[in-house]
Amino acid sequence: MAPSPIAPPAAFGYPVRVQPHHTDYGGVVWHGTYISWMETARIECLRSHNMDFANWVGCGVDLPVVDLSLQYHQPLRLGDEAVVITWLQPRRGIRLVWQYQIQNRATQATCVTGVITLVPVNAEQRKILRQLPEPVQSDLDRLYASML
Amino acid sequence: MAPSPIAPPAAFGYPVRVQPHHTDYGGVVWHGTYISWMETARIECLRSHNMDFANWVGCGVDLPVVDLSLQYHQPLRLGDEAVVITWLQPRRGIRLVWQYQIQNRATQATCVTGVITLVPVNAEQRKILRQLPEPVQSDLDRLYASML
Amino acid sequence: MAPSPIAPPAAFGYPVRVQPHHTDYGGVVWHGTYISWMETARIECLRSHNMDFANWVGCGVDLPVVDLSLQYHQPLRLGDEAVVITWLQPRRGIRLVWQYQIQNRATQATCVTGVITLVPVNAEQRKILRQLPEPVQSDLDRLYASML
Amino acid sequence: MAPSPIAPPAAFGYPVRVQPHHTDYGGVVWHGTYISWMETARIECLRSHNMDFANWVGCGVDLPVVDLSLQYHQPLRLGDEAVVITWLQPRRGIRLVWQYQIQNRATQATCVTGVITLVPVNAEQRKILRQLPEPVQSDLDRLYASML
Repeated sequence: MAPSPIAPPAAFGYPVRVQPHHTDYGGVVWHGTYISWMETARIECLRSHNMDFANWVGCGVDLPVVDLSLQYHQPLRLGDEAVVITWLQPRRGIRLVWQYQIQNRATQATCVTGVITLVPVNAEQRKILRQLPEPVQSDLDRLYASML
Repeated sequence: MAPSPIAPPAAFGYPVRVQPHHTDYGGVVWHGTYISWMETARIECLRSHNMDFANWVGCGVDLPVVDLSLQYHQPLRLGDEAVVITWLQPRRGIRLVWQYQIQNRATQATCVTGVITLVPVNAEQRKILRQLPEPVQSDLDRLYASML
Repeated sequence: MAPSPIAPPAAFGYPVRVQPHHTDYGGVVWHGTYISWMETARIECLRSHNMDFANWVGCGVDLPVVDLSLQYHQPLRLGDEAVVITWLQPRRGIRLVWQYQIQNRATQATCVTGVITLVPVNAEQRKILRQLPEPVQSDLDRLYASML
Repeated sequence: MAPSPIAPPAAFGYPVRVQPHHTDYGGVVWHGTYISWMETARIECLRSHNMDFANWVGCGVDLPVVDLSLQYHQPLRLGDEAVVITWLQPRRGIRLVWQYQIQNRATQATCVTGVITLVPVNAEQRKILRQLPEPVQSDLDRLYASML
């Protein structure tokens, strides 16, 4: 396995605590739960740059996930505190490629790593949008600039 | 506690098996999981009467839950087989009142009982609809008639 | 419908933001999502009193929900900010009765009200516990005292 | 992108219908929902071979996901009928590698493809198990033989 990339200084950290509904019979976080955490981290990262995803949706743009790749290294348990670290990869076409690392706050261990790719679509017909309406386009330009 | 009502012959049974994602750290079904099962049972009950809920939504009608009351009597565990029994209470105005019993298939024990009330709204403004468009109105008339 | 009780000064507020995975096709929070928010609010309320629910579980005590009653008054939408207000009703036997109000932060509207009742059980056999091990018993005594 | 592999004759098909709780504000299945469907398909595939996953857990074996890779090609909408097709890749060490294709039943379109890798661990310490207790070992031998 390739070593996990190092989070850049501009990466965003979203703190989360393991609640009962995150766990399964094994006493650990169920593997699908992380997908929700990663979504929230992505949207709160946008908010930290004063961008409102609900506003993008209001402009007729949706951002569905087209590719998702996760590696699970260590479990998290009920009550554990974690941080979902995320950053955007340099722009390459219209796809947004978000890198992820989820760390156990107490042990600093990396529990999950992953990459999630999204693509802008027209919210109605769900066709890929190659030109984005304002303010989505200028928000994205600003977001990519902030990651440099 | 009032004794649980007896399911009428017209009640609908939706079979379900406890999967890992239904459970929590306690090894039992997480209490919120039953809400999804009850929703599926409700919609599959409609389908058993040749009514397609997605079609109602396509006609601009949504049916949000306005009241939900559940009692948890016994847990279900990983791999357990259960049946979600549901039936509609006699018509009283515009509210649809669904009665529920969830039984463990192996032991016949009643694990959860409940009542869920829905009200038709306009899908856009989410205002209560006192007059329903076709075919929703005739579907509902037929549904109530089938429960007698 | 009985008017909703007024939250006492000792009530706990857990802030939450509506994320995509909280919503359904109607563009509003799916009714079952609130159950997770209420669970998190309950456990973070304990934490605000320096009580660690995971520690209780480690002592062999679980707190399953035995009764849940929710009224849905108004929807919340993608991006909305809400606060889940919760407080414990005065002690009456072994049941813990949590009162809930979920408010839209922008409009101050009460969106959901409810009551959730839990009962302590032995984590293994899931039998009701009439005597609680330490530190669960003294934690609960302290929690009830704080609500006065 | 590499073309999706062709499902072998021994592949298992798990039918599913898109319910309200599977969808998000976009009116399509939320990307994390598929993870639950895939888990259920995997466990029901075992059951179709008379293997009970809950029994494996009872023997002290858990099978956590260690790698998950999904591609989303087309959305599914409320009420759509789909089939989750899954099969096990030929044995290569202790990892179980499950291949997935989710198809829209009406259009035959492939909506999601993916690969999910699991590894057996001791349920208590969650250490990788290189030797499996009975009947897990003979169940797995039989499962791999059935895929040929």
